Amino acid sequence: MESDDQLALLTDLYQLTMAQAYFQNARMEPATFSLFIRAYPPNRGYFVSAGLKDVVEFLEGFSFDSISLDYLHSLGLFADDFLDFLKNLRFSGEVWALPEGRLFFKDEPVIEVTAPIVEAQIVETFIINQINLQSLIATKASRCIHAAPGRAVVDFSLRRTHGIDAGMKVARSSYLAGFAGTSNVRAGLRYGIPVVGTMAHSFVSSHESEIDAFRSFVKSFPNNSILLIDTYDTIAGARNAVQVGQEMAARGQRLQGVRIDSGDLADLARRVRKIFDAADMKDVKIVGSGGLDEFDLAEFSAAHVPYDSYGVGTKMGVSADAPWFDIAYKLVEYDGRPVLKLSTGKVSWPGKKQVYRLRDGEGRLTSDCVTRREENIPGAEPLLKKVMAQGKTAAPPPSLEESRKLFQEEFSRLPEAVKSIRDPAPYKVEFSAALKKLREQVARQAGGAA
Amino acid sequence: MESDDQLALLTDLYQLTMAQAYFQNARMEPATFSLFIRAYPPNRGYFVSAGLKDVVEFLEGFSFDSISLDYLHSLGLFADDFLDFLKNLRFSGEVWALPEGRLFFKDEPVIEVTAPIVEAQIVETFIINQINLQSLIATKASRCIHAAPGRAVVDFSLRRTHGIDAGMKVARSSYLAGFAGTSNVRAGLRYGIPVVGTMAHSFVSSHESEIDAFRSFVKSFPNNSILLIDTYDTIAGARNAVQVGQEMAARGQRLQGVRIDSGDLADLARRVRKIFDAADMKDVKIVGSGGLDEFDLAEFSAAHVPYDSYGVGTKMGVSADAPWFDIAYKLVEYDGRPVLKLSTGKVSWPGKKQVYRLRDGEGRLTSDCVTRREENIPGAEPLLKKVMAQGKTAAPPPSLEESRKLFQEEFSRLPEAVKSIRDPAPYKVEFSAALKKLREQVARQAGGAA
Repeated sequence: MESDDQLALLTDLYQLTMAQAYFQNARMEPATFSLFIRAYPPNRGYFVSAGLKDVVEFLEGFSFDSISLDYLHSLGLFADDFLDFLKNLRFSGEVWALPEGRLFFKDEPVIEVTAPIVEAQIVETFIINQINLQSLIATKASRCIHAAPGRAVVDFSLRRTHGIDAGMKVARSSYLAGFAGTSNVRAGLRYGIPVVGTMAHSFVSSHESEIDAFRSFVKSFPNNSILLIDTYDTIAGARNAVQVGQEMAARGQRLQGVRIDSGDLADLARRVRKIFDAADMKDVKIVGSGGLDEFDLAEFSAAHVPYDSYGVGTKMGVSADAPWFDIAYKLVEYDGRPVLKLSTGKVSWPGKKQVYRLRDGEGRLTSDCVTRREENIPGAEPLLKKVMAQGKTAAPPPSLEESRKLFQEEFSRLPEAVKSIRDPAPYKVEFSAALKKLREQVARQAGGAA
Repeated sequence: MESDDQLALLTDLYQLTMAQAYFQNARMEPATFSLFIRAYPPNRGYFVSAGLKDVVEFLEGFSFDSISLDYLHSLGLFADDFLDFLKNLRFSGEVWALPEGRLFFKDEPVIEVTAPIVEAQIVETFIINQINLQSLIATKASRCIHAAPGRAVVDFSLRRTHGIDAGMKVARSSYLAGFAGTSNVRAGLRYGIPVVGTMAHSFVSSHESEIDAFRSFVKSFPNNSILLIDTYDTIAGARNAVQVGQEMAARGQRLQGVRIDSGDLADLARRVRKIFDAADMKDVKIVGSGGLDEFDLAEFSAAHVPYDSYGVGTKMGVSADAPWFDIAYKLVEYDGRPVLKLSTGKVSWPGKKQVYRLRDGEGRLTSDCVTRREENIPGAEPLLKKVMAQGKTAAPPPSLEESRKLFQEEFSRLPEAVKSIRDPAPYKVEFSAALKKLREQVARQAGGAA
């Protein structure tokens, strides 16, 4: 179905044809590529870094197996000596990167890879693929968290994520950005994320009546049942849940909560809350779900709709309002020479770089400054860390829990206006005088205008 | 990274909690679930079926391994006898489905699974996940093909697809719907799809000058070079390509084409075409790429912009204007009793069903009719085939090439107005009198209104 085999082939064909041209022309000097996002999608003013762990694992294990080499040979495009070269190719480079869970902004380098140009080039496709997806989802998920203060938000998206890998990475990225758990059981195993779940409409409709279904379910889960009450009529469903909850109480058990998944979610939550409160069941929680996104959650928060938690699915899991980033991995240096792409509207910053983060006296983020790698800004924090050297991990990566805490701390220090889920204020990102000067020089040499 | 292990856990936790409740309440009768799409996204009037092959493979191989069972045990939710039951659980059911590459319409069943309710329920998440993604992309890709008649369209999306599995399935689904190839090398190996590629901006910018880069590349690929001409200035790039093409001609070689990836793509194609025509290089092809989708392609087709082929990436690979379907997998029968969900706005059709396709005298599609499974419409084609019986494949699936041909044949017979990429006309889907009567009966019994 979807194995790890031939992962080195998970690249665009042109990476390999370019590699052969480099190889045959003996152009094997070190190159630096820089990954960054060129523009904010609508209603975005920041990004959350995610995906680095998979990138580092991929680079450490990078190699072409015999099935891959046989396939490449069969294409009739590649010379034998080049295929021999690929057979022994490993990633031997250096990687500087922003740790997972950190905030970043447009035009800031997130990953810079320095390696012999063939190595740094072939891995482009995989690196973009994973950083794009995981940062996209972490960013979207952080918006949901921000829109529902004091409420637990969980990931219900697996059925609508784009495939298996996305299902796994969405669970992980949303947890990184503050989600409380996921319905994805395999992600629970793989990443140690709490798994959560209630019941489906089919459970109710497979029984002769709704109350039979509720009684049947709580028999199996006397301590943690959340009953889905909207299969037929939500208000009648709430009354059935009250009755079952009272039956449980008489047995010394407790109904944990109910879920509403369709209809006028705000109105229904208020009416259902009243029904439980009137029955002296104030501790029964109400979970909301059904096509929710951060815009709904913000509306419910502002209107004090009495949901205790939310299941967020499709629209988070595919980042529905912005399903991709304008993300690029650009050559910025070759053989010690800084380089630049000048295509219309797609200007990049040449050379190896660093990003510094500045805070005010209370620790609040005030601005970033992108510099040449060797520059230093006293008192500011350099964000890019050396995560790989000579093809190996340079330092053990933080755990998912550590990255999650890192995110929460930093996100709490980002100005509210930048976090706004509609029309956020721009965050200040400056470029150092030395970097600007370098870009002008390179642009002049290339005969274009920066 | 992304192995096949523990694939049975790729489900929502509630599938397993419901399974335990069914098991402990001895509710193990056969259930039928029906998969369908509830609504068209904007500008869609049909869907293309894809993903069935993966669903059948998943069902055939379905089982919980010891790592999965140990993990489930660790959650403290599941009883030992239920975990023993899961250990021996295999999929033993029957599956009726629409073959890959066929067209379908909203509210029509695409897959109907009949199996003991636990089996049919646990596999829901995976089935929706794969059919949603693959049909989403096949549908989007078919729109690109329709918008660019007479032009080859290839998949350049791997770097922006949502993860690894999506990258593979997008390559396959777009090929199924008529794409000419993919840049994804691993998909080429796995699915036998033609792989295609040109060169990247980094290849040009890593050289001291653009013409050096072009010369270096054609040295390695004298017979199939497509030069990327927009790294600095597209018109100057075209002139450099002419010069290199003339040098190649003098050596008895031939420049295959050039690619334009940024700027005013329509204007640049016309100017570049003139440059090559004036140099008597009429057979040099022009490839267009850079953020294209079916709307751009339709505009270029209408204006006769002289592109010979297109590389379509991100917007196809994530179905950017409609990144998910309102797709559902609903219980329609349990223990021989047809059932219905009545939640607001989410009414389903009860019972096992069949879909019949009607054509006119010239073979053009005129309408579909959804019926109860056992009905027959003389002269009309029944679309759902029995693809699995007793948990095993009932007939060898068609090859990808066969499905691709099937799609092309059928798509050519779908009325133009339904294929329109903007505001398509609705296609007529009727529901048989017997099916309507059944729904009324079930709704009455459930005490609601259909």
